[in-house]
Amino acid sequence: MVVGVVGGGQLGRMLALAGIPLGHSFRFLDPDPLCPASAVGEVIVGAYDDHSAVARFVAGIDVATFEFENVPVATMSAIAERVPTAPSARSLETAQDRISEKEFFRSCGIRVQPFEAVNTEAELAAACGRIGFPAVLKSRRLGYDGKGQCVVRSPHDLTAAWAAVHGAPAIYEAFVDFTAEISVIAVRSRDGDVRIWAINQNEHRAGILWRTISPAPAVNDAVRIAAEHAVRAAMDALGHVGVLTIEFFVTTDGLVANEMAPRVHNSGHWTIDGAVTSQFENHVRAVTDEPLGSTDARGVSGMVNIISIMPDREDILSVPGARLHDYGKSPRPGRKLAHVNVCAGDERIRDAQMRVLEDLVRRATQDVPAERDQAVGNA
Amino acid sequence: MVVGVVGGGQLGRMLALAGIPLGHSFRFLDPDPLCPASAVGEVIVGAYDDHSAVARFVAGIDVATFEFENVPVATMSAIAERVPTAPSARSLETAQDRISEKEFFRSCGIRVQPFEAVNTEAELAAACGRIGFPAVLKSRRLGYDGKGQCVVRSPHDLTAAWAAVHGAPAIYEAFVDFTAEISVIAVRSRDGDVRIWAINQNEHRAGILWRTISPAPAVNDAVRIAAEHAVRAAMDALGHVGVLTIEFFVTTDGLVANEMAPRVHNSGHWTIDGAVTSQFENHVRAVTDEPLGSTDARGVSGMVNIISIMPDREDILSVPGARLHDYGKSPRPGRKLAHVNVCAGDERIRDAQMRVLEDLVRRATQDVPAERDQAVGNA
Repeated sequence: MVVGVVGGGQLGRMLALAGIPLGHSFRFLDPDPLCPASAVGEVIVGAYDDHSAVARFVAGIDVATFEFENVPVATMSAIAERVPTAPSARSLETAQDRISEKEFFRSCGIRVQPFEAVNTEAELAAACGRIGFPAVLKSRRLGYDGKGQCVVRSPHDLTAAWAAVHGAPAIYEAFVDFTAEISVIAVRSRDGDVRIWAINQNEHRAGILWRTISPAPAVNDAVRIAAEHAVRAAMDALGHVGVLTIEFFVTTDGLVANEMAPRVHNSGHWTIDGAVTSQFENHVRAVTDEPLGSTDARGVSGMVNIISIMPDREDILSVPGARLHDYGKSPRPGRKLAHVNVCAGDERIRDAQMRVLEDLVRRATQDVPAERDQAVGNA
Repeated sequence: MVVGVVGGGQLGRMLALAGIPLGHSFRFLDPDPLCPASAVGEVIVGAYDDHSAVARFVAGIDVATFEFENVPVATMSAIAERVPTAPSARSLETAQDRISEKEFFRSCGIRVQPFEAVNTEAELAAACGRIGFPAVLKSRRLGYDGKGQCVVRSPHDLTAAWAAVHGAPAIYEAFVDFTAEISVIAVRSRDGDVRIWAINQNEHRAGILWRTISPAPAVNDAVRIAAEHAVRAAMDALGHVGVLTIEFFVTTDGLVANEMAPRVHNSGHWTIDGAVTSQFENHVRAVTDEPLGSTDARGVSGMVNIISIMPDREDILSVPGARLHDYGKSPRPGRKLAHVNVCAGDERIRDAQMRVLEDLVRRATQDVPAERDQAVGNA
């Protein structure tokens, strides 16, 4: 089949690297002809709302999907009129708006922190009065990697916070006192078969995922079952087809859902080397209506993101067991350039490998001149 | 780096699928614009001895390699004048000619069966007199997958055998009474680092590899050490860079080398799913002068080739743990279309998975109408 992917970033690239061995070929819609996915398929160059580019993209593909949740719903709906498309517009719409996402979680019986929609600075002040401090103000739409977010610690922060979201429709969320951040990634086929990977424990820096280990040490059986139940409930409620990710805070009082992504997720990149079937391959299998593969873990896994600066490649490749996944991008502050996976027989070896890799990545970033470093911190 | 690969078949395709995650991009020289590798890189369309195509191929690549050993030495030498190229012309030349290959083995202290070069039917008769029967007559050059070979059981077969090799320069080899066929695959870096994968036990049908399991049950520690010693001696003698494969017969009297391939090999396809670093990735690492990755096995592995006819894809993908690698080729009798890997924690599970897969592949082939089946038998 020819699989069309809206978006040609690293997620599209890794979807194709997983789907080509299944015999599929790939086409991407992306504004950048040299996007990471250009190495593994044809790129139709155009904006995501460019009707003529979308028409060229859709002509000749057999199925379609997307690699990021900020693609216009209208574009995906237009494509869905022509070819089978997954996930559906419903999954996309729900994930695009933080308010509808939180309301959807509640409708599935998934706990979320107190939140309120705010459309003006006055509404923000009112929400602060009800929800209190500290809290986080986030733009309702187009947020990722910590962009468009601002912590509000006291009434003095209000004006600055409102400026930080550029006065766009926003959500005011109570701060969650968490012991760990985790994510659960699952895939659902067209006939409702659901498979779930081992749960991921994630650490962020400056709002960007820094490292993941799986299975998550902070998760006992009860919490794992709760997270699996939640993702299953969400996928069934949406009639979701493909991969879906939910991020949770682990608190002393149980799980609190943070957000969801109707797609393959950075915290699941370890599955390329650490699971029988990766999140990328199973997403392709779901979209092309083929049987899902086993999500069993092949050991204990870890992933380190490489952001802003590429460390010395020889150093990375010399770490025993390190699996480099380079996206072929030019370096830029705050940009995800690559990730490195490890998969080991036990935690001790995995943790030793992770320490070496994290040191290499940290050392590379600290070599950055002060001015660029500043930009990384602000990204 | 831009890696140029002479040949755009499934081996080139899998080299790119392994090398793209390292951040490389790929260009291929192949007469067929729709060759399997066309999904993963630019194809310069041309014959392997077309000077102008070779010039276009080489312009802009950083390093070069080849995916099959029948590429003209003159082409690789011309490329090597422009960019670092591995393996060298010496490895290629040695492997292209069955006589020089056998003489090379002997020079490395690697045992081979009695053989003689034959250039005329009279020389064939003389060789038969000295070596006896049964024996195999093979064309000296351009042989693969059992093509250009003929078993000689008595003097009555001589004329037919000579016709079968089309009167080309040939080699007359004593038949080896073997208990198993194995192969050892190793990789050598530019600075002489050698890594060896677990040994493969291979079964052929109609001259084409049908299945591989690894590690090889027919190989005890002493035999394994002998095979590893042989491949290391051969690579060091050649100054080989990249992957090298040697096929051996296991006899009651020790190992007898059959042939070598200066490239990634069908019997090593399991390494994609069954080793920490695959033969494809390590070949790319060697060619691009990067540190080699671990060749450790991730379990016990097996591979089944899919030849001539593709079984039902759903059936294949439904086998737990089955990893499909489809080359994107149209079916044709005798053509390798795909392979399926399994990697398990123990032999019992691996063997059960293999049985299911082999049954699926056999059943598909038996569904072929009689006339085509005949052609398969003759291929």
